[in-house]
Amino acid sequence: MKKLEENEFDLRYINKFASLMTIGNGYCGLRATHEENYADQTRGMYVAGIYNKATVNEPSELVNLPDMIGMHIEVDGETFSLQTGEVLSYSRQLNFETGELNREILWKSNSGARYRFTFQRFAAKNDLHVLGTKLTVISLDKKTQIKIVTGINAQQTNFGRQHLIEEKVRVIEGDLIQGIYKTTESGHTIALTACFTCSGENDISHSAKNRQLLSTIKQDLLTGTPFTLEKIGTIYTSLDADIMGKSPEVAGVVALRKYSLDGYDALLEKSAESWAQFWKQNRIKITSTKDFDQLAVDFSIYQIEIMTPAHDERFSVGAKGLTGEGYKGHVFWDTEMFILPFHLFTDPEKARKLLRYRYLKLEHAKAKAAANGFEGALFPWESALTGEEETPEFAAINIKTGKRQKVASAIAEHHIVADIAYTVVEYYQNTLDDAFMRKEGLELLKETSRFWISRAVEEKGQLFIKDVIGPDEYTEHVDNNAFTNYMAWYNVEQALYFMDKYGDSDRVLLERGQEFLMRLYLPKANDHKIIPQDDTFLSKPEIDLSCYKESQGSQGILMDYSRQEVNEMQILKQADVVMLLYLFPDQFPSDVVSENLDYYEEHTIHDSSLSKAIHAIVAARAGEKAKSYKFFREASLIDLGPNPSSSDEGVHAASLGAIWMATMFGFANVSIKDHRLSLKPNMPSEWTELAFPVIFRGSRLHINLTHDKAVITKVAGDDVPIELNGAEYLLTNKVEVSLQ
Amino acid sequence: MKKLEENEFDLRYINKFASLMTIGNGYCGLRATHEENYADQTRGMYVAGIYNKATVNEPSELVNLPDMIGMHIEVDGETFSLQTGEVLSYSRQLNFETGELNREILWKSNSGARYRFTFQRFAAKNDLHVLGTKLTVISLDKKTQIKIVTGINAQQTNFGRQHLIEEKVRVIEGDLIQGIYKTTESGHTIALTACFTCSGENDISHSAKNRQLLSTIKQDLLTGTPFTLEKIGTIYTSLDADIMGKSPEVAGVVALRKYSLDGYDALLEKSAESWAQFWKQNRIKITSTKDFDQLAVDFSIYQIEIMTPAHDERFSVGAKGLTGEGYKGHVFWDTEMFILPFHLFTDPEKARKLLRYRYLKLEHAKAKAAANGFEGALFPWESALTGEEETPEFAAINIKTGKRQKVASAIAEHHIVADIAYTVVEYYQNTLDDAFMRKEGLELLKETSRFWISRAVEEKGQLFIKDVIGPDEYTEHVDNNAFTNYMAWYNVEQALYFMDKYGDSDRVLLERGQEFLMRLYLPKANDHKIIPQDDTFLSKPEIDLSCYKESQGSQGILMDYSRQEVNEMQILKQADVVMLLYLFPDQFPSDVVSENLDYYEEHTIHDSSLSKAIHAIVAARAGEKAKSYKFFREASLIDLGPNPSSSDEGVHAASLGAIWMATMFGFANVSIKDHRLSLKPNMPSEWTELAFPVIFRGSRLHINLTHDKAVITKVAGDDVPIELNGAEYLLTNKVEVSLQ
Repeated sequence: MKKLEENEFDLRYINKFASLMTIGNGYCGLRATHEENYADQTRGMYVAGIYNKATVNEPSELVNLPDMIGMHIEVDGETFSLQTGEVLSYSRQLNFETGELNREILWKSNSGARYRFTFQRFAAKNDLHVLGTKLTVISLDKKTQIKIVTGINAQQTNFGRQHLIEEKVRVIEGDLIQGIYKTTESGHTIALTACFTCSGENDISHSAKNRQLLSTIKQDLLTGTPFTLEKIGTIYTSLDADIMGKSPEVAGVVALRKYSLDGYDALLEKSAESWAQFWKQNRIKITSTKDFDQLAVDFSIYQIEIMTPAHDERFSVGAKGLTGEGYKGHVFWDTEMFILPFHLFTDPEKARKLLRYRYLKLEHAKAKAAANGFEGALFPWESALTGEEETPEFAAINIKTGKRQKVASAIAEHHIVADIAYTVVEYYQNTLDDAFMRKEGLELLKETSRFWISRAVEEKGQLFIKDVIGPDEYTEHVDNNAFTNYMAWYNVEQALYFMDKYGDSDRVLLERGQEFLMRLYLPKANDHKIIPQDDTFLSKPEIDLSCYKESQGSQGILMDYSRQEVNEMQILKQADVVMLLYLFPDQFPSDVVSENLDYYEEHTIHDSSLSKAIHAIVAARAGEKAKSYKFFREASLIDLGPNPSSSDEGVHAASLGAIWMATMFGFANVSIKDHRLSLKPNMPSEWTELAFPVIFRGSRLHINLTHDKAVITKVAGDDVPIELNGAEYLLTNKVEVSLQ
Repeated sequence: MKKLEENEFDLRYINKFASLMTIGNGYCGLRATHEENYADQTRGMYVAGIYNKATVNEPSELVNLPDMIGMHIEVDGETFSLQTGEVLSYSRQLNFETGELNREILWKSNSGARYRFTFQRFAAKNDLHVLGTKLTVISLDKKTQIKIVTGINAQQTNFGRQHLIEEKVRVIEGDLIQGIYKTTESGHTIALTACFTCSGENDISHSAKNRQLLSTIKQDLLTGTPFTLEKIGTIYTSLDADIMGKSPEVAGVVALRKYSLDGYDALLEKSAESWAQFWKQNRIKITSTKDFDQLAVDFSIYQIEIMTPAHDERFSVGAKGLTGEGYKGHVFWDTEMFILPFHLFTDPEKARKLLRYRYLKLEHAKAKAAANGFEGALFPWESALTGEEETPEFAAINIKTGKRQKVASAIAEHHIVADIAYTVVEYYQNTLDDAFMRKEGLELLKETSRFWISRAVEEKGQLFIKDVIGPDEYTEHVDNNAFTNYMAWYNVEQALYFMDKYGDSDRVLLERGQEFLMRLYLPKANDHKIIPQDDTFLSKPEIDLSCYKESQGSQGILMDYSRQEVNEMQILKQADVVMLLYLFPDQFPSDVVSENLDYYEEHTIHDSSLSKAIHAIVAARAGEKAKSYKFFREASLIDLGPNPSSSDEGVHAASLGAIWMATMFGFANVSIKDHRLSLKPNMPSEWTELAFPVIFRGSRLHINLTHDKAVITKVAGDDVPIELNGAEYLLTNKVEVSLQ
């Protein structure tokens, strides 16, 4: 399996790699910052669900917890830093297979002595509360002394915003250190506990000052004899306590007492077993002329796994996962539309939990709808732990005017309501989970439908959805956004379908729904086969976007034009109509698909990281292999490309989900059609083989594609109906079809 | 004049020099952190009086304000840092004469090109709100590009505690940047404003994100042609607004518009003129075999000047001045006993303001007395802006027990009451300021007397002061601490004296005071001529302290013994009795002085930075020249010595005051005796000349001492009575006396 590698110490990339090489397990994420301090290095450890408002007027944000990784290391009285002395060799690897981050350095100190340092760490996958770190130092040239200062450092902030009160710092029974912290507004308690094991005799002392609880370890270093320091840590919060019935303080100590004797290597082995199991059930294997493609997909799957809090349905996935503070850890439509599909096709129980998250917050969505004068449920554009709208009311201050602009998304970016409904239906189509659908699913569909019915306005005998923002945020406050209208229609249609299926007798809703379906205006392709993005889009002036496309993702257009000016031109951040084509592949004829893909791509800067991979899917399905592969590769570079600061504040979670989606829904062209799992592969010419597992209706399948042949094997579960390039089969054991 | 110099870039000293080389003006203090970032470098900018509680349970602390100094500099695409490339030469100087900090570096980048950097900065002494910085860069080897990112960075915290809400960040009229911040609890507004001037054409852009308002300046760098960037800043707060009647926001812009055209050099010149005037009136000139002595005294005077908020009597001097966050910027007895004397003898108006600070907080002191069951005024052990007791109720958590110990100082370290009263009398003795004494002075003396009278308890017909802590904090909760009892007696005696002088008719207080003076127990020297520090001290066991004295200042004894154990031995942090001998030089016969100095010194570790210089004074007066000079030198090394982390959290303000005091009250042996300014010099053998200005009764004198001769000249003012080695004179013009 591929590893993500960094073979040079380059400070310009320090925060990018800190995000990319995050270790985690869905419970916590730990940025891959170096043990030793560097100026401008942004440390970060986050626990899913632990949000807080720094002050009343600020939105909740994912709390950057006290650091347990930092180490001040002195050998022979000299501070270890890659900025001093000479780095003779450097290599860092994130091993997807084991979940371990590993760094090896051969360092020559200023005084000329050479030392070999190995740093290892992992966040356990089998027990989500456990962090393991291990340092190995070998002095190659001389007998000397090593001194290490490390502990729990609560000076961490979210870019200056402090969310935690240091309630208590302790040394317990002489060998455990523990810090207890409380969030200032949300009132969560976090217990961080750690213990140390060293090779040989050593001298440990502890101290606490200025929000740091530090242990100092001193030991003699013999020439050529490895010195090892293991630091095992645990994280428990009051959110866990709700489930465990044990205080975080006690749980942290109990767990550490249990694990500390095992030692780093044994704990890593157990965690790596869980990872092995995960990969066995989830890996996509690609044979490509470009090795990078395999890395990109492995990386995506690894990241989706560590960002998803599958252990607790009270939380969902933030826009940067648990890798950084971008978007304050908030949950957007990204989760349902870009992250959830992976889980749905590999471990549907996780998909169910993500939908349960929305279900649990229905009351707040209904309250938001009511507050805005609508019926049903209006889900917040940005969501966190409580389910209240977390979108900041005002954007960052405009430094030229000194004024803050109202953020329009929370007011008008209503498509999220239908996105959630769409995903509910997707979930059912794969799982046929009637238990969920009867209760949570139906309620979600009905409440979201109620919203759309009340949201539409009558004009000229038709129903219009006016003043919305579609996914394309460069076009605001428009009427009859095609994406929104089609999605709303589907939302209501599916609600009625399932109401009927389960015998729901809400006649009022049924009638209003039918009326809505009959009268809602759905923009149709014009004479040039172009579906208008909204009522006015196609009449707006066009400009040459090529220079902005060259630096896509940077939002450079906003340096040259105001938002208002951008709004008045045919300029797209991402293409709503292409997204629509992706979601309803059978709704539009192939010439319409091709024309719209071309037209809208020309007007799209791809400043949204959600854009490229969706284009890849639609292009692949349209048989435009070269184009789709190009989009796929470019999407892969959003995080993994050479831009040194593209991912400083975290990875692009949705984009990573979309890379998996491009592989599955584009190149393999998997979909669920008339209750069958359908494949209609469009593999890039550069690929010779694509193999992947799929779960469909609870059965575990394995699919192997080459340009010549498709082999679908049932690994476990009941027989399932499948469709391959239009031909139907019942998969009892294996179906092998020539694709030539 | 001496400069404080650093001639090597050594990261171990980075925070020490940041404290020592602080620039300031009593309004603000700006730590001497480097423009470029280094891990573990603690930036700090403080404004006198701006305190805040980070959370309700924490004490107020001096707020670390947003940083205006930090700069990210790139030349030829390479980030400037002394940790990379090669430092060909480095020199940094704090110029006491001009108040400017100057750094010159010849740097070779990793790519081999050489650049000369000059960084300059000052805090204006003529207009306290103005900061000037200037960067000059010369590319020596090639034509290239420079990029600088700098602005206002509100990610600063007090070791992780965030005190400020970022209310507004602005670019005003395209060229000024301004950040408006508000403290979370105390509600102060702070406006930081800055503008830039560059040599030549340049490209400036501005951005705001994550509590940073940043300006990016890009320019071509020609070979050999200096590029300069001037950044002028202003600081205004709502505390200023109380006086100016103008909002900080407006004031900051108006001032900057006024000053920015002048440019750095002209602004520096004006500020340096104020410094020149200051030194003319305050400098002590020492001719010594050790050049360091002059540096130590210049440094002390510089620091005392920049730590004293002479502009506003609502504040006083914190234990670290405005140089760091140690002791949270709180005001202790240090101010009256160690800082104020300098002002009293050089600019008595500043001394008056510092006493006014106490007077303004009398209501809180009376409330504290009442809350503790006493009458009169019990001043807080630690004070900040409001005058309430700011001593944390509990000490830092004991990490072994997990418990917090109550801090005893606020409960029992009552001598501060008498220290303030003592200083009121000192102030009067120099100034004969009847206006102050009739009103503020008398009220302070009366209320402090009331406290002592109510504080004493009757036992065996005598009055005892029980359960106190003297200045020596290694001995807690003792009865009849000699220092406290003598000081309380003097407090009441002086109150009665001035009541009589001004015809105060409070008969009750007069009678109770007389009774107190008659009956208060004053510990007398025993058969061995030793004055017992308290009732039990001399009966406690002794141990050999030599190893602890070797690392004095480190409180190493507390690593080997608990506080309770230390309390039960004859172990002193600083010697109360020696302090007593210093304050009442005529009260004890010379043999008692010598015996006590020796006895207590043997039992004193000098873990308090207030200790050494007081020993120097008492030894000097006792004629023990070698010993007193040794103490003086050791006191000078508390901040200026080689310990790399002695001053990380700020300079030792009281110790610096005491260095001036040792010179004046020890070596020159200046005192006021029977309304005369008395001198009885005891210059060290290493010194050949000591010359200094003095203000006495409003007259400006100049004193020049050699071992042979004393010359006292009246520079300005009325004739004043003086005394030289016991002989009395009326100084009309000049008095010259042989000392042989």
